[in-house]
Amino acid sequence: MHWGPLSRRGAPRSGAGQAIPVRRPRRRGWSNGLMEPLDAQLAFLREADRLKAVLRQSRIIDGSRRENSAEHSWHLALMSFVLHDYAPAGADLGRVTAMLLVHDLVEIDAGDLFAYAGAPAQARQEAAERAAADRIFALLPAGQAGEVRALWDEFEERRTPEARFARALDRLQPLLANYAQGGGTWAEHGVTADQVLVKVALIEDGSPALGAFARDLVQSSVQRGILAPAP
Amino acid sequence: MHWGPLSRRGAPRSGAGQAIPVRRPRRRGWSNGLMEPLDAQLAFLREADRLKAVLRQSRIIDGSRRENSAEHSWHLALMSFVLHDYAPAGADLGRVTAMLLVHDLVEIDAGDLFAYAGAPAQARQEAAERAAADRIFALLPAGQAGEVRALWDEFEERRTPEARFARALDRLQPLLANYAQGGGTWAEHGVTADQVLVKVALIEDGSPALGAFARDLVQSSVQRGILAPAP
Repeated sequence: MHWGPLSRRGAPRSGAGQAIPVRRPRRRGWSNGLMEPLDAQLAFLREADRLKAVLRQSRIIDGSRRENSAEHSWHLALMSFVLHDYAPAGADLGRVTAMLLVHDLVEIDAGDLFAYAGAPAQARQEAAERAAADRIFALLPAGQAGEVRALWDEFEERRTPEARFARALDRLQPLLANYAQGGGTWAEHGVTADQVLVKVALIEDGSPALGAFARDLVQSSVQRGILAPAP
Repeated sequence: MHWGPLSRRGAPRSGAGQAIPVRRPRRRGWSNGLMEPLDAQLAFLREADRLKAVLRQSRIIDGSRRENSAEHSWHLALMSFVLHDYAPAGADLGRVTAMLLVHDLVEIDAGDLFAYAGAPAQARQEAAERAAADRIFALLPAGQAGEVRALWDEFEERRTPEARFARALDRLQPLLANYAQGGGTWAEHGVTADQVLVKVALIEDGSPALGAFARDLVQSSVQRGILAPAP
């Protein structure tokens, strides 16, 4: 399949294999001065490398270190591809994957906030992420910047089936890691089952089948004694 | 867009939103015993987490540590999405992204081999990767295992435009990192420009525009003194 317009609101992409603009003298980042859109795209991709240095609360499953947001994004994109049968019927799965590849880039500026942080911290985080989106996506050529920003907005607003499914995977992955680690961040941060079930509702919203699975996993975690019951 | 059949040789996928099989008693991995295909898919996704612990020779651009193959795969998938205008006309870009998401999973068993390793080491690596593909992709439900294995084979064989473009990105990314780092693995391992130009030919094969850019980058690197000329 082809990449269609990336967002329902985004501009149509330019044609594949299009002619490359003329040589320019100045250099910036990786640029060799050959291609103006490519200059901007490579500047964006170089900036994206910094996501590898943003640490999340969760650990990789072997427990050896904290997970970074770049490898987390890879895991989610892989999930979108492997678990596509649990997406809403008719969902555009290319757009789900694209959303998951870009959704955490704002953490380059804003850092990662623990999913169970309180409301004031969440509000500060939202503002910081919006400012980061303004800066980071604007590194791309103008038309593409708008498309990718629209994708990020779509993920944040979670109104489309694609955004809800993407968000469901983003919520499911840490549950799986905590279960595999016998508690993980639940144990470290004293999270209780009722708090986890609030996240499970977001999974159900994007994928009833994965939500049912997650609800059962929470119950099983309480039974195993790796998640504290509601106080 | 939708995920179509993942490979030209793969079986058609089952329908999105399909009914979930009946409850079963046994447990394995993350499974809650609810859903047989989901059991297998989650076992695969759990195994995939181990790619985060596979280290490559390259460092992340800030130089602080070696890059792992999971975050590398994320960077490549992001590149496939940002640089889609430089793909061959008519290429199925969803398949390119999917290939890049799965292409390194075999390194969980086989480890990463430096791109400039000699022919005997490359041959041993190929055999180890094929054995790893046999084991790892077989964790998925049978139909999906075949589809993903076909994608991996397609990437390795590099006959389709999609595989050639994916491979071009896989070769371009370390060039960009080395350039940004003022030498990187070129300097560490005494790689010379003629060796890099062999990789550039693979980039040109998948994307003439990106190949031209890479060729210019090599020339510029020699001029900057961060890449040794051919001996």
